[in-house]
Order: sequence, then structure tokens, then C-alpha cells
Amino acid sequence: MAPLDYDALGFKAILAKLDSGILIITINRAKQRNSFGDTLPEELIQVFGLADRDDRVRVVILTAEHTAPAYCSGADISKGWSALFKPEETAEGETAHRDTGGQVTLAIYSCRKITIAAVNGHAVGVGMTALQLPFDLRFVWEGAKLAFPFVRRGITPEAASSYLLPRLLGHSRSNALLLTGATLSPTSPLISSLYYEIIPKREDVLPAALTLAKDLAVNTSQLSVSYTKGLLQHPGDSIEENHLLDSRSIKLLGSGRDAAEGALAFKERRFPKFPDTLAENSSPWYPWWKTMDVKHRKAKL
Amino acid sequence: MAPLDYDALGFKAILAKLDSGILIITINRAKQRNSFGDTLPEELIQVFGLADRDDRVRVVILTAEHTAPAYCSGADISKGWSALFKPEETAEGETAHRDTGGQVTLAIYSCRKITIAAVNGHAVGVGMTALQLPFDLRFVWEGAKLAFPFVRRGITPEAASSYLLPRLLGHSRSNALLLTGATLSPTSPLISSLYYEIIPKREDVLPAALTLAKDLAVNTSQLSVSYTKGLLQHPGDSIEENHLLDSRSIKLLGSGRDAAEGALAFKERRFPKFPDTLAENSSPWYPWWKTMDVKHRKAKL
Amino acid sequence: MAPLDYDALGFKAILAKLDSGILIITINRAKQRNSFGDTLPEELIQVFGLADRDDRVRVVILTAEHTAPAYCSGADISKGWSALFKPEETAEGETAHRDTGGQVTLAIYSCRKITIAAVNGHAVGVGMTALQLPFDLRFVWEGAKLAFPFVRRGITPEAASSYLLPRLLGHSRSNALLLTGATLSPTSPLISSLYYEIIPKREDVLPAALTLAKDLAVNTSQLSVSYTKGLLQHPGDSIEENHLLDSRSIKLLGSGRDAAEGALAFKERRFPKFPDTLAENSSPWYPWWKTMDVKHRKAKL
Repeated sequence: MAPLDYDALGFKAILAKLDSGILIITINRAKQRNSFGDTLPEELIQVFGLADRDDRVRVVILTAEHTAPAYCSGADISKGWSALFKPEETAEGETAHRDTGGQVTLAIYSCRKITIAAVNGHAVGVGMTALQLPFDLRFVWEGAKLAFPFVRRGITPEAASSYLLPRLLGHSRSNALLLTGATLSPTSPLISSLYYEIIPKREDVLPAALTLAKDLAVNTSQLSVSYTKGLLQHPGDSIEENHLLDSRSIKLLGSGRDAAEGALAFKERRFPKFPDTLAENSSPWYPWWKTMDVKHRKAKL
Repeated sequence: MAPLDYDALGFKAILAKLDSGILIITINRAKQRNSFGDTLPEELIQVFGLADRDDRVRVVILTAEHTAPAYCSGADISKGWSALFKPEETAEGETAHRDTGGQVTLAIYSCRKITIAAVNGHAVGVGMTALQLPFDLRFVWEGAKLAFPFVRRGITPEAASSYLLPRLLGHSRSNALLLTGATLSPTSPLISSLYYEIIPKREDVLPAALTLAKDLAVNTSQLSVSYTKGLLQHPGDSIEENHLLDSRSIKLLGSGRDAAEGALAFKERRFPKFPDTLAENSSPWYPWWKTMDVKHRKAKL
Repeated sequence: MAPLDYDALGFKAILAKLDSGILIITINRAKQRNSFGDTLPEELIQVFGLADRDDRVRVVILTAEHTAPAYCSGADISKGWSALFKPEETAEGETAHRDTGGQVTLAIYSCRKITIAAVNGHAVGVGMTALQLPFDLRFVWEGAKLAFPFVRRGITPEAASSYLLPRLLGHSRSNALLLTGATLSPTSPLISSLYYEIIPKREDVLPAALTLAKDLAVNTSQLSVSYTKGLLQHPGDSIEENHLLDSRSIKLLGSGRDAAEGALAFKERRFPKFPDTLAENSSPWYPWWKTMDVKHRKAKL
């Protein structure tokens, strides 16, 4: 089977390009202010699912054109919120709806590769939630205007942001961000700890993310990354249970080829060449956690 | 039924005034250094309960006179700690006591409106815990002396502070604050992230809080605030469960009048006039969480 | 029974000295770059267990010689990772291994006295995890090079670090530290909030920790410290359950001798002399939580 060609998948709302282990996804809706609409959500779900299973991919970066009006201007609400709900969901009651932002969040959060958001423009609403919070790391342009305006629009925070934001920053900052709906600069102490690095110029955000991505694509083990993400997202319920989980993880990986290469490369002071891949060499024990099925059963596929 | 007149409720330890959706509660015990005693706890429990149910209230601010010796100097322990325990509780064993600070904390934490502490003076003990931690946002005077001195007094942190503080700031800061009992300035990196804003002058703390409160009273939806607080305080146990919770929340609110007005006002670039109120328009699904009954059964009312 | 003499216990990898309630433990493997090997893990487990039960101990400090090549250079991997696994564990399957770093973490974390890491040198791997994260407070030399390099070595974070680090700092910082494996300065915003204080000179780190320790050894109640650590590590599952836990704690301690002395000393503006000790005066209710037994059953003692 020929390896997947991301360019040839017919994406409309995004561009996707794989090079040297790094998949760069660019939001391609500058004329629509990169709003979260049309096929953008489903294409993001698809591409992060592919990146998760494609052993060539080590790091995934989501970004926008740095000349676009925004990184993501949020959902298009010119026709009101209810235009965002599917008719069959409305017919099937209030438990039928599945928030599109949340579906994108889950696809990104469950991707087992390193994920980086390169936020090189303004970001509002779902541009702050689904398109930033589920990523492992976030780079941001210093001049970006950032807002979680949900309480100012008569709705609620979506895309699992009420779960992710407090875990990322603590409740003191999260309450301030979600309950005031204020528009902030990345340098505000209320939000700065969300970011790995704050970059003065828009055009330098993606290059900064790419520099780190190149380092990580070469120097990190795919298995190590996936197990570490597993431990961070699904730790033990107690410190003792976590001790059992990480003991088993380190025994499994520490007996493997990547660990041998890691120790050897360190000893020889050279870059490692990690041989193991996620699809081929992961243990059946991984994942060790259970995942709730969130599909609505009545809705058609 | 005539609307509630907060001035006429006969409060002694507090002043309460409602204006334009903002209820300002002022601790009125300057002669007792605003210590947490006499009728202050029960009046706070009462007034936050009323604010929770009064649809006119959008934002609640707790503050003190900026000329008082302290925002709150803590419990009055001149007669020792046991003077704070009720005789019938002592007679009914060690599980009978219900910490007064904790009762106040629960009343503030469960208030469904935006709550702001305007800490315009020194704060010690329960003045740090019950009178700050359960609030959504905290403003503070830069010159305030702040301390959680419990381990230095032979007792333990109360008012659910061991639950709230790590959630607000993380354990690195919380351990430092609760285990050293040190007296700190708000600008210390150990505590600064507790505060929304640090204000140089005492007399400017309440005005700063009020400026934000006026914005929020006009521009936020009461339903949005209450659901957002619900999601922040009672998230899903997993990201998937949270996705179900916020999907249902956004479907409920997104189909409502506040969301329609929020989208329209945004489109028309004007202030919104949110029509929905909490008492009249909330869904029977809200609250979706269970609350443990903490009453001691033997004690008389 | 004569009181324990820490000097006479025959430690090889550490020095241990008790003075005025402060137990100073010094890693004594400068020739091996203070690597985490030989008898160091078992001696640390032993000495923290003794400190936990010895009522004379109020504060425990772990440090290194400030002239050593490192505070702790991590595990010695010159013979690869699998050299770190015991043969009988390998024979008994992948669930048999118990990570040595995790065993040290549990011993430090469950010590009921105040614990301080005085990190006066570089720290890598287990020198960041087991030898820093389970402590209540951390002092660090500004020039220290700090790294969690697990993903760069083909293994996973150990010593319960995936449990402790997000609780200490939040996931935004923890993800960055554990998934990039970067080497950082303590002043980096990615890691600075891990530290109570950052000290410019190596030789001043231990004295700074000692100054705080002397204050805490005199001015804090041993019972208060142990109950406060209990509440921080084992809070209620809800704010209401926490209210019941801290109500019971404050009733127990508030009726005791330390609380009476604490109130009296405060009133008389003098240093307290807390009479209660942990071994003699703790309630049978403490500890109120359950601890999972993590021993592997087949392995010999």
C-alpha cells in the first residue's frame, strides 16, 4: 500500500503537508476570517485521526496563514446559534446534540503524537477552545487578541473547555477567562501560562513552532511520547496507582529498542535513531484506560 | 410580592445594597477589626442565599470599609479556639461540628451569580479562606498583608480551603501557603495568581471591582453565567463526559432567547439586553450534579 | 530506649544529621555525580520512614554538597536501562517491576513532617522527579540546569511524576516539561512556579532552606502540619465532603493542647511551645484515607 499523500486527500478548508515527520495543517479559510465552519471541523477530525495512525508523523502543527484576518475568528453566528444545530438532532431531543468543537477537541486530544498550535493571529471562541486547548503546546503571536466570549453571547463554553482550561491553568485563571469573557493579550498574567512561547512577530510564530518540532521529531521516541501523553491524560486515581502505571510503562519501554538506542546515543553524545513505531511496537496493554463512547445512537451516520 | 429590600433586612454585621444588578456587601465590624464573629457568618450565609435566588442580582461584591483596620482579621481567638465550638456539638462527638467558615464558603461557592471579593485591607485566616477562595474573582490592595497561619496556631486550614486553594493555584503554591503559614504581599509569586488584579491604593480596590461588575452585569447572560459556573465546578469525570455535558448545555442555551439576543447584539454591534432569568428560565436538567447533605442530624435547628 | 542516632545508622550514600528538630540529609555520592544508584534509593526510603515516625523531627531537608557536579545527575544508564531492572522482576512478568524512583517518591510523599528539597546543583531525570516533586517545598540554585529528558531517552516519566507534576504546576507547564524533555533554567516561566525560592548562589541554597526550616521547626505544630498535609493530599471528593473532613480536623485539633498554646502564644505575642507530638497525640481517625498496597507479591523481600 502506497503511503498516504496528505496533499491528495481533497481537503478544502485546510492544507496539509508532511515533511520530515512533521505534519503542518494550515487553516485555509482566510476569506471567511478562518471561521469554524463549512468542512473545517470534519477535515480536522479526519486529519488528526490519520496523523494518529500514520507512523511517519512525529509532530502535528496547526496554524493559519499569518496574513489572514485571524487564526480563527470562532463560529459563524451571523444566522444565530441554532443554525449550528443539525435538524435531526433538534428532532431527537436535548441529549442528541454533539458539539462540533468538542468532536474536534477529542480528535486532537486523543492523537498520540506531539501536537502544537501555532497561533499566529487573533483567536475567539472555538478558536481558543477546540483549536488551542487540546494541544500539547501552544505558540502565540504577542499581538493576538484572545477571547472566550461565551457568557457575553448567551451560550456556554464548549469543546470541553470547562474540562481542559482548569487543568491547564488552574481555576483562578480559568474562572476569570470563562466568566468575564474578556478580550486579552497573551502577555496578560491571566492567560500567559497557557503558552509555551509568546512571539513578537506574526510571521515568526510558525517558524518558532517548527524549530521545536524539528528537534522533537528527531530526538523523541514515538513510543515514549504516546505513553507519556497517556500517563498525563490518564494518571492513576492515587499516587500509588500511578506508581503501578508508570512502573509498568517504564518496564515495557525500558526493555525495548528505543530505550537501548536512547541510552546508547546519550553515551555516544549523538542524535538518536529511534527504531520503534507506535502502530507496530506498542504493547496490547496500551491504552490502559477506558474511553466513554459519546456517539448519539439515533442519529444517522 | 414586593421585591426584596436588602437595606431593610436588619443586618448588623454587614451592609447590603443592590443597584443596577450589583449587590455590594460591606463587612461592618471595623471596631472589631472586621473579625469573623458575632452574626457575620450567618448574615453572609443568608445574603448569599438571597442573592442566588434574586433574579435582579447579576454580580455580588464582598468588601470592607477601606479605612477599617483589615478586610478581615480572622476569627476572634482571644478566648481560645474551643470558644468557637457550640456546646451541643461538643456533647454530640467529634463528627458533630460544622466549621462556620465552611458554611459561609458553601453559601458563596453555590451562589449562581458572579461573585467578586474586593479585598481592600489585610486578610488573615478565615479572611483568606471563606472570604476569598469561594469567589469567582478577587481584587486586592497591593499593600495588604495576607496569611493562612493555621499551622502556626495549632489548628488546620478550614472553610474547604484545602479543597479550593490547590484547585485555584496548584499544589506547588498551595503547599507553600498552607504549610508555612507565612505572611505575604499580593505581589509575591507564591500568591499573585490568586488575584484578578492587584491595585496600588486601598480606596481604588472597590471602584476597580465595580467597574468590572458593571460591565458584567450588562453584558453577560445570567443563564450563561450559572451554566458556566456549573461546568467549572462540576465538570465531567472524563473529557468525553464533559463533552456530553457541554453539548447539552450549549444546545439548551443556544436554542434560547439569550443566545438569540447575544448573536443579534454582536451582529448589530450594540450592548445586549438578555431577557432570560435564572429562576424563570433554567432547565429542570440544571443542576446536573448531586450535592452531599452536610447537615448534622442531631443538632437542633 | 535510647533516641535514634542518625549518624550511627551506617548510611553510605547519604549523610543524615538531626539538630533542633531539623533533619538534614545530604546526598553523598559526589564522585558518582550524585547519580541515583547503589544504596541511595534504599537509604532514602529508610531515612524518610524514620523521620516520619521520630517525634523529634519537625522538618526534613534533602540537599547535596554544593561543590558536587550535580544535585542529582539522574539514574546511571551507562549499562542501559535494563540494568536497572531486577532479574526476578523480569522473570515474573511486566507487572512485577516497581520503579525505584517511585518507591522513594512514596516514602517522601507520605512523610508527615515538612519536607524541603534544597536543590543546590543540576538536576536531571529522577533528580527532578523523586528528589524534588514529592517534597512540600523546593529551593533551587538559579544556575541549575534542570531536565525531564525521558521522551529523549526512549522511556517514560517515572517516580509518579505524571501524577505529581500536573498537580503542582497544572498541565500547561507539565505537558511542556515532560513532552519536550528540554533543559531549562529555574527562571524559565515553564518551571519557575515549582520553586518556593530561586537563589543566585549555589552555596546559599541550603542556608536559605535552613532559615525557613528553623522558623517552621519552632513555630508550627506537628499535628497541624500532619493534618494539613493529609487534607492537601487527600481532600474530599467534593467541596461538601471536604467541609466534613476539615470540620472534623479543626474540631479535633482545636480542642487540643497545641491549639490552646497557639492561641495563647499569639495573644501574648511570644513564640509558641507546642506540646503535642504526632506519635503520641494523633487521633485514631487519622489517617482518614485508604492507601493502596503496591507490593509485588511474588518477589522476595
